[in-house]
Amino acid sequence: MGKLVIVGTLAFDAIETPFGKTDKILGGAATYIGLSASQFNVDAAIVSIVGGDFPKEYLDLLSDKNINLSGVEIVENGKTFFWSGKYHNDMNSRDTLATELNTLADFNPVVPEDYRDAEIVMLGNLHPLVQLSVLNQMTVKPKLVILDTMNFWMDCALDDLHTVIKKIDVITINDEEARQLTGEYSLVVAARKIHSMGPKYVVIKKGEHGALLFNNDNVFYAPALPLEEVFDPTGAGDTFAGGFAGYITKTGDTSFENMKNAIIHGSTLASFCVEKFGTERMQNLSKKEVHKRLLQFKQLTQFEIELT
Amino acid sequence: MGKLVIVGTLAFDAIETPFGKTDKILGGAATYIGLSASQFNVDAAIVSIVGGDFPKEYLDLLSDKNINLSGVEIVENGKTFFWSGKYHNDMNSRDTLATELNTLADFNPVVPEDYRDAEIVMLGNLHPLVQLSVLNQMTVKPKLVILDTMNFWMDCALDDLHTVIKKIDVITINDEEARQLTGEYSLVVAARKIHSMGPKYVVIKKGEHGALLFNNDNVFYAPALPLEEVFDPTGAGDTFAGGFAGYITKTGDTSFENMKNAIIHGSTLASFCVEKFGTERMQNLSKKEVHKRLLQFKQLTQFEIELT
Repeated sequence: MGKLVIVGTLAFDAIETPFGKTDKILGGAATYIGLSASQFNVDAAIVSIVGGDFPKEYLDLLSDKNINLSGVEIVENGKTFFWSGKYHNDMNSRDTLATELNTLADFNPVVPEDYRDAEIVMLGNLHPLVQLSVLNQMTVKPKLVILDTMNFWMDCALDDLHTVIKKIDVITINDEEARQLTGEYSLVVAARKIHSMGPKYVVIKKGEHGALLFNNDNVFYAPALPLEEVFDPTGAGDTFAGGFAGYITKTGDTSFENMKNAIIHGSTLASFCVEKFGTERMQNLSKKEVHKRLLQFKQLTQFEIELT
Repeated sequence: MGKLVIVGTLAFDAIETPFGKTDKILGGAATYIGLSASQFNVDAAIVSIVGGDFPKEYLDLLSDKNINLSGVEIVENGKTFFWSGKYHNDMNSRDTLATELNTLADFNPVVPEDYRDAEIVMLGNLHPLVQLSVLNQMTVKPKLVILDTMNFWMDCALDDLHTVIKKIDVITINDEEARQLTGEYSLVVAARKIHSMGPKYVVIKKGEHGALLFNNDNVFYAPALPLEEVFDPTGAGDTFAGGFAGYITKTGDTSFENMKNAIIHGSTLASFCVEKFGTERMQNLSKKEVHKRLLQFKQLTQFEIELT
C-alpha cells in the first residue's frame, strides 16, 4: 500500500447556490482531496493548519476515514481559514464574498517523519511557496507529484508558481487557467507550452464538459457525467484531484494508460460531490454506489466501432 | 445500399475568421451534409434550390461524389441564397453580417420519384414547413428521420417547428438551442422534455466540447477531438449531421449502439471540416485520413478500467 501526502486547506465554507445556502460548514481543498482519496483505502496524511475553533468532529470525520492528521497544526488561539461564495444561476461561475486567511497566513507546513518517503504527493491549491516547502521536505524523490493551483497565484505569485511547476509531474488546472498561464486559446497548444514549463502530464478540468489529459502527443478526453441537477459545485475539482491521486497511489502505476483510469475515477467521484452541499455526499459514499456509477461512465463513453 | 434524402440549402457563404476572410464560396447545409454523407458511398439525393448564378462546377463537385441532384431546382433568372458571417476571436460565437434569401424565399421542395421510398431522411436547417413538406412526400414511412434546426425558427416559427418535431425520430441541436426550446438549463432535463415532444433520440451538439446522444435513460457522450487550431467552424454541425446520417444509411442499423458509432463518425468528419475555410477540407478527404482519425478518436476516449 502506497503512501500519499496531501497538503491543502482545512476550512470553513459558507456557500450560496440557487438551491439554498449554508452557514459555516466543513470545507477546504485537503478535506475534499482526503475524502476522495480515502475511497481507495490508501495510507494518506493531510498536512494543514486550523484554529482552535475547528470542531473536533470534523477532524474525527477525517481520521475515521483512516487519514493521518499528525501533520495538521492546531493553533489553539487562532481561527480557521474561512471562505464564502455565491454561485450564479448557471453554476459555472461564482463570486467570492469573503476570504479570511486567519491561521493560514502563517502556515509553515511540516510533513510528518513517517510520510517523507511517500510515493505520491498531492499539492492542493495554496501559495506556491507552501507547496514548494512540502516538496523540499521529502527525503525520497516521490514517484509522482501532482499540483493543483488557480488563477489567483498566476496574478500575484507567478514567479513562485513557475518555480514549483518546474518540479512537479502532473498539473491540474481548469481551461481558463491553462489559457491564462500560457496566453494560448487552443488547449492543445496550451498543454504543449505547459509541458515546456516542466510537467510531463497536464490535466485540464473543464467542469461539466469533462477533463483532458495530455502527455506530449498522447491525449485522453473523459467527458463528465451529464447530471440532472448540480446542487453545489464546491470541491468538485479537489474531489477529482483526490480521486486521481488516490487511484494512482493505490495502483502504484504512473503509466499514461493507468492515468486514464485515474481520470475516470476522479470524474466519477466528482460527480457525486456536486449532488449535495459541501462534503455531505462524500462523507457516506458507498463502494457500491461508486461501482455503479463507474459502470454508467463506461456505458456513457465506450463504443465499438468497426474500422474496415 | 440504403437511400438517403437530404433537404437543405445550397448557398454562397462569405466568411471572416481571425485567420482570414473569403469572398463568396460554396456553402449551405445540404452541401456540407452531402459531402460528409458521401464518405459512406450511399445513394444520396439533395433536394434544394439555387439561382442561375450558382456555378456548374459546384454542382459537378457534388455529382462527382455520386450525389443525385435531380431534386435541385435551378431558377435561371434568380439568385442563390447568400450568407455572410464573422467569427469572434474565441471561434465559438459569430455575427451574421448578411442573409439574402433570394430563390430560397419561394422554395417548394420536390423529392425525386426515385427517392420517395428512401430509408433515411435528413432534414437540414430550413423553415419547418419546408422540412414538413419533404416528409409528406415520402410514399413509404422512412426508417429514420433526422432533423436539424436552429434558434431562429424557435423565435419566429415555433408552432410549425413543434409540428415537424412531433414527426421525426432524431433531432440535432446545440446546447443553447436545447435550453431555449425547453426552458431547462440541465441538458438531461432538456433532453427528457424534447423526448416528450416526439423525438426518441436527442443529439445535443456542444462544439469543442463534443456531442451527447440521449434515448430515454441511455446516454452517450462523444468528446470532440482537441484541435491545435480551428480555422473556420462553418459547416461543422452539418458535417456532423451528414456523417451521422450517412453512417446510419450505410449500415441500415438504427439501434442505440449503432447510433453511438454514427456520432463518432460524425464527430470525426466535423473535426476535418473546421481545419480549412468552407468545404475545402471536405472536398478531397481520403478514406485513409478518416480511418487514421477514427483510430485517434478511439485512443482519445477508450479506457480499460478494472471494476473489482
